[in-house]
Amino acid sequence: MAAEKIKVAIVGASGYTGAELLRLLVRHPHVEIGALTAERSAGRPLAEVFPHLDGFGLPSLVRLEELQADRFDCLFLCLPHGVTQEVVKALPRGPKIVDLSADFRLRDPDLYARTYGHAHRAIELQREAVYGLCEHYREAVRRTWLVANPGCYTTAAELPLVPLLRAGAIDADGIIIDAKSGVSGAGREAKLSSLYCEVAEGIHAYGVATHRHTPEIEQCLADFAGRPVAVTFTPHLMPMSRGILATIYVRLANGLDARELHALLWRAYAREPFVRVLPYEQLPATRHVQGSNLCLIGVHRSRVPGQAILVSVLDNLVKGASGQAVQNMNILFGLDERAGLDPVPLFP
Amino acid sequence: MAAEKIKVAIVGASGYTGAELLRLLVRHPHVEIGALTAERSAGRPLAEVFPHLDGFGLPSLVRLEELQADRFDCLFLCLPHGVTQEVVKALPRGPKIVDLSADFRLRDPDLYARTYGHAHRAIELQREAVYGLCEHYREAVRRTWLVANPGCYTTAAELPLVPLLRAGAIDADGIIIDAKSGVSGAGREAKLSSLYCEVAEGIHAYGVATHRHTPEIEQCLADFAGRPVAVTFTPHLMPMSRGILATIYVRLANGLDARELHALLWRAYAREPFVRVLPYEQLPATRHVQGSNLCLIGVHRSRVPGQAILVSVLDNLVKGASGQAVQNMNILFGLDERAGLDPVPLFP
Amino acid sequence: MAAEKIKVAIVGASGYTGAELLRLLVRHPHVEIGALTAERSAGRPLAEVFPHLDGFGLPSLVRLEELQADRFDCLFLCLPHGVTQEVVKALPRGPKIVDLSADFRLRDPDLYARTYGHAHRAIELQREAVYGLCEHYREAVRRTWLVANPGCYTTAAELPLVPLLRAGAIDADGIIIDAKSGVSGAGREAKLSSLYCEVAEGIHAYGVATHRHTPEIEQCLADFAGRPVAVTFTPHLMPMSRGILATIYVRLANGLDARELHALLWRAYAREPFVRVLPYEQLPATRHVQGSNLCLIGVHRSRVPGQAILVSVLDNLVKGASGQAVQNMNILFGLDERAGLDPVPLFP
Amino acid sequence: MAAEKIKVAIVGASGYTGAELLRLLVRHPHVEIGALTAERSAGRPLAEVFPHLDGFGLPSLVRLEELQADRFDCLFLCLPHGVTQEVVKALPRGPKIVDLSADFRLRDPDLYARTYGHAHRAIELQREAVYGLCEHYREAVRRTWLVANPGCYTTAAELPLVPLLRAGAIDADGIIIDAKSGVSGAGREAKLSSLYCEVAEGIHAYGVATHRHTPEIEQCLADFAGRPVAVTFTPHLMPMSRGILATIYVRLANGLDARELHALLWRAYAREPFVRVLPYEQLPATRHVQGSNLCLIGVHRSRVPGQAILVSVLDNLVKGASGQAVQNMNILFGLDERAGLDPVPLFP
Repeated sequence: MAAEKIKVAIVGASGYTGAELLRLLVRHPHVEIGALTAERSAGRPLAEVFPHLDGFGLPSLVRLEELQADRFDCLFLCLPHGVTQEVVKALPRGPKIVDLSADFRLRDPDLYARTYGHAHRAIELQREAVYGLCEHYREAVRRTWLVANPGCYTTAAELPLVPLLRAGAIDADGIIIDAKSGVSGAGREAKLSSLYCEVAEGIHAYGVATHRHTPEIEQCLADFAGRPVAVTFTPHLMPMSRGILATIYVRLANGLDARELHALLWRAYAREPFVRVLPYEQLPATRHVQGSNLCLIGVHRSRVPGQAILVSVLDNLVKGASGQAVQNMNILFGLDERAGLDPVPLFP
Repeated sequence: MAAEKIKVAIVGASGYTGAELLRLLVRHPHVEIGALTAERSAGRPLAEVFPHLDGFGLPSLVRLEELQADRFDCLFLCLPHGVTQEVVKALPRGPKIVDLSADFRLRDPDLYARTYGHAHRAIELQREAVYGLCEHYREAVRRTWLVANPGCYTTAAELPLVPLLRAGAIDADGIIIDAKSGVSGAGREAKLSSLYCEVAEGIHAYGVATHRHTPEIEQCLADFAGRPVAVTFTPHLMPMSRGILATIYVRLANGLDARELHALLWRAYAREPFVRVLPYEQLPATRHVQGSNLCLIGVHRSRVPGQAILVSVLDNLVKGASGQAVQNMNILFGLDERAGLDPVPLFP
Repeated sequence: MAAEKIKVAIVGASGYTGAELLRLLVRHPHVEIGALTAERSAGRPLAEVFPHLDGFGLPSLVRLEELQADRFDCLFLCLPHGVTQEVVKALPRGPKIVDLSADFRLRDPDLYARTYGHAHRAIELQREAVYGLCEHYREAVRRTWLVANPGCYTTAAELPLVPLLRAGAIDADGIIIDAKSGVSGAGREAKLSSLYCEVAEGIHAYGVATHRHTPEIEQCLADFAGRPVAVTFTPHLMPMSRGILATIYVRLANGLDARELHALLWRAYAREPFVRVLPYEQLPATRHVQGSNLCLIGVHRSRVPGQAILVSVLDNLVKGASGQAVQNMNILFGLDERAGLDPVPLFP
Repeated sequence: MAAEKIKVAIVGASGYTGAELLRLLVRHPHVEIGALTAERSAGRPLAEVFPHLDGFGLPSLVRLEELQADRFDCLFLCLPHGVTQEVVKALPRGPKIVDLSADFRLRDPDLYARTYGHAHRAIELQREAVYGLCEHYREAVRRTWLVANPGCYTTAAELPLVPLLRAGAIDADGIIIDAKSGVSGAGREAKLSSLYCEVAEGIHAYGVATHRHTPEIEQCLADFAGRPVAVTFTPHLMPMSRGILATIYVRLANGLDARELHALLWRAYAREPFVRVLPYEQLPATRHVQGSNLCLIGVHRSRVPGQAILVSVLDNLVKGASGQAVQNMNILFGLDERAGLDPVPLFP
């Protein structure tokens, strides 16, 4: 463990993932927060943008161009996709980077272009990036300087599925992921669809068959299935600020039953501090992970023979974004992965 | 249209479905509300139990044994399952009955016993009961005196699926229904799992593979598929008072594509006042039906060839319970089906 | 009652008060909705902006300049303040107008200028406008063509206070109004402070001592007190879409006690269809008026001698805006005031 | 700081304050949680009652009679009022006690009897109890073994008022406290009034002029005013799980203005870690203290001369209950008051 603190800067600190990084890093025993950038709010004290973060001696917001990036050990990037790749390209080499955007998640440039509607503008860096699903790419993260932190939906889908596909326990075809997310996943931008009156007391599906997290999920699952995977992924917006729940319908392979699936997942995550497999046929609730870096997974038999149902939950701002980013930073710097990550959820 | 008003009584009026019946019937042009029963609240003015229903001259709550049932044209029963069959058995013949419980929904006595854990105690009446999914059992409802009003989840699942199965447009096997419901579906009983702090800002699945609405859905679908149907049905509890959304994953049959599915559903419901099929690939939101008797249905292609996604929404207290009950009463008495049914949703 | 229908247009129909007007007018037996305007959404079918209003044959949105205003009997204006006065000035005389903005509410041009930061641009019309608090300005409304529909907070404050001040039952000084409002009062504009994540699960006060509804309340109260009145008014934002509750602290005058206050209010509203005084020391809840045009008032003694506590509730979009606007239209055209106004609240 | 850990037990651990104590104590560096009691849930693993507390090695729930109280350094009591006094009476002397109930808060036995409807059954212990409003009774807490932890509403009212009354800066008569609380303040008992459908999307006042926190507030304020104080206190239920906001209307004394009030409060709390006075005329929001032990206070001038408005916020389960209880334990054992108390709120 380093005697000196890791100097970090957060680029794009005025959104929800920025605020959540700050909540975690303020308590991190080995981190010193040196700079915060935000374009529209540059020049303002942080407490004007986030009154709940007053009193911790945090720096005021500056413009990205004012940031002396080479003075930092680690940069967290919370910028929109498209912009991020240009920023990373322009940054001096030296600081390690945890990128919370989608810019470096897809390895295939064509897939990136099809998904995001433009050619990637930093393809050479894409090759050095490592996908930061900590539990399954840990060794590669340790060796890189550029972590592509996974999406929130994708983390919730991949954690239960990866060990099963790796073991050949489920059919790689026909996986259906019915996912439900809290509103903070849409960011802090002022838009009609995120207004209280448009969200409270109602639900709807969106981005069916077109959501940009789908190729990301498929790329990760293919890594472990050893073959291409196509999933059905349906996101829904929930009237809650935090939390994702993914209900996943799978077909059993090789004569296994749901109980064996459960045993397999149990073993896969037995030593992981942040992934917890519940007892067989117990199912998790998002309110049991609020504010924590946990992902809980339940396994249930289906009434239809040959199938099983997996349910995973996580807090989209923690394990689905900023918590996993801190976990990745811990890996990058050889710290205990748990450092700075609050273990106890807030309930109610 | 009858010159005289239909005299109705509501048995078990102190719950949410009772209150919702009252909201609708107070405005119904051809109904006179003659009596309301409730066991624990008997003797109290209705406005003590439901302050929002003060000022409409509604009768006080009485015990069921005080009800002179033969003086009414129509009884709405909002009692727990198990109790209802005994009550119906003991009632004088004469009044028509719309039963909102599950007691007369399953035609097979063995299936009933397996599902509810006891032998049915009014099997002879079961034979006379008609399942009241108005749009598809309308003719049979017209001829009966005992309507088994469908469940809320089941209505949301059946309305999109029935026309497709009847037309052989989808595979009767492998249907997955991922359903999400508001809290009022759990009734007005004081229980831990319905407390604000246990529901707000979080979601979870429950009753996976065991929910009692599953056999009801399968019975109805089998009626139209012409063969047994087994479905995967996963209910989830949402932090909202009203509304159900069902996301349904189907496999296309006979070489059809999702667009043809849509056309088929569009035609099936073109003349129905309360079922509306949205333009292809538009998806409905529960907040667009709040307080109304509407069911909205959307059809979307899947990324996986040979599959499609259906999304249906309704207000669980209206089309999912009391609204459909009023619609059934309208059919029973030869009225316009729309009478008393509020057409415009409350938004926001 | 007119044999012919009243032709109405809604100017600024794409916000929440516009939508609420439509919900009410669609069911109004004597109204025909002829045109809807909206600037940014002009050219779009209404159902794109408000999917819940699909299926009622409503006209598409047009730009204000496309509106042939003289073909309508009644215009509802749902525009921002400042803009409205220019619009009314430019309109042809003929149609009666119910203005839901604040533009014509303050009679004193200086007070208007101080409150809104610019000189009124249609002072000559201001003189013809009548403040539309139906229960207390009914006769004047009947004779005008331009109704300044009251604000939501102000209606909630004025209805309990006016009869008491008129009777000299309370001290005109020292009135404290602690008011709590749902989010729809802030309109449908996309702004940070109305986002779900900034509103849900939390509360705060705002506009203390500076809210623009304060002079409006004081003007109305002075009308009935017969002397200037200064109030303390503190608005708070609540995590709910609809509803206002005002807790009002008053000092008793002329040796009266709280029970006499209650009797006085009871008599004042005994014949009003939309204002209901609850039994002494019963207090109302906003959920008992949701979607209805009701205002409920409770009166409670204080522990401090010589004081009393009043609590009023209403739905800010109905009696606090669009419902009262329809009630004013009914008065303007000599209809039953209740026409088109839904009597039964939606609960839960 | 003790080298050995403080052994604590929580009596009545199955409610929300018990869960919140556990959330805080699990992370407390100087505490070992030795036993948890609960009557109805005795014998069950804690994780069945609170799934979010699984994985921390916490003991199972036992009955109170199984507790060997003399083996603990500190007991937290989370029992209903009335019961608590009997329990404390029966306990062996030795362990220090932080009582979260109301049983030992009122020093005057007659006032207790009038407020709670029965004579106090442990009057002799009442004399030894110290009221645990940490910032103002710290020295007395240090010397006692029995702390009466303040109520949630009372803490929110007392923290802004105590320094002002002590300084004679406001009139001790005529204080009006309009308070708004989240639902968790009503506990985890299954009751109709705490159901999601009875709370969400609506607000109401309750316990006006009769709430049992009123005498507690008055006793504390009188301690610092040096004379009897009578307040008007109106609690309201809010659709949110956590948080209290108190809007307090005061009359200025001795020719002071609101800005001087602010300066006085600012100085009073300048060195307190958990009470923060915002810049003049800035007002706090409950969402800025969620999960933290903070109380934020804002001061605003009134439009009415000679008056001012104070707004305080806190998390009712933290500074309003379990957080303050931990702070009291820290004082009792000579620890840093901040130990174990999470500094950073959860937002959103």
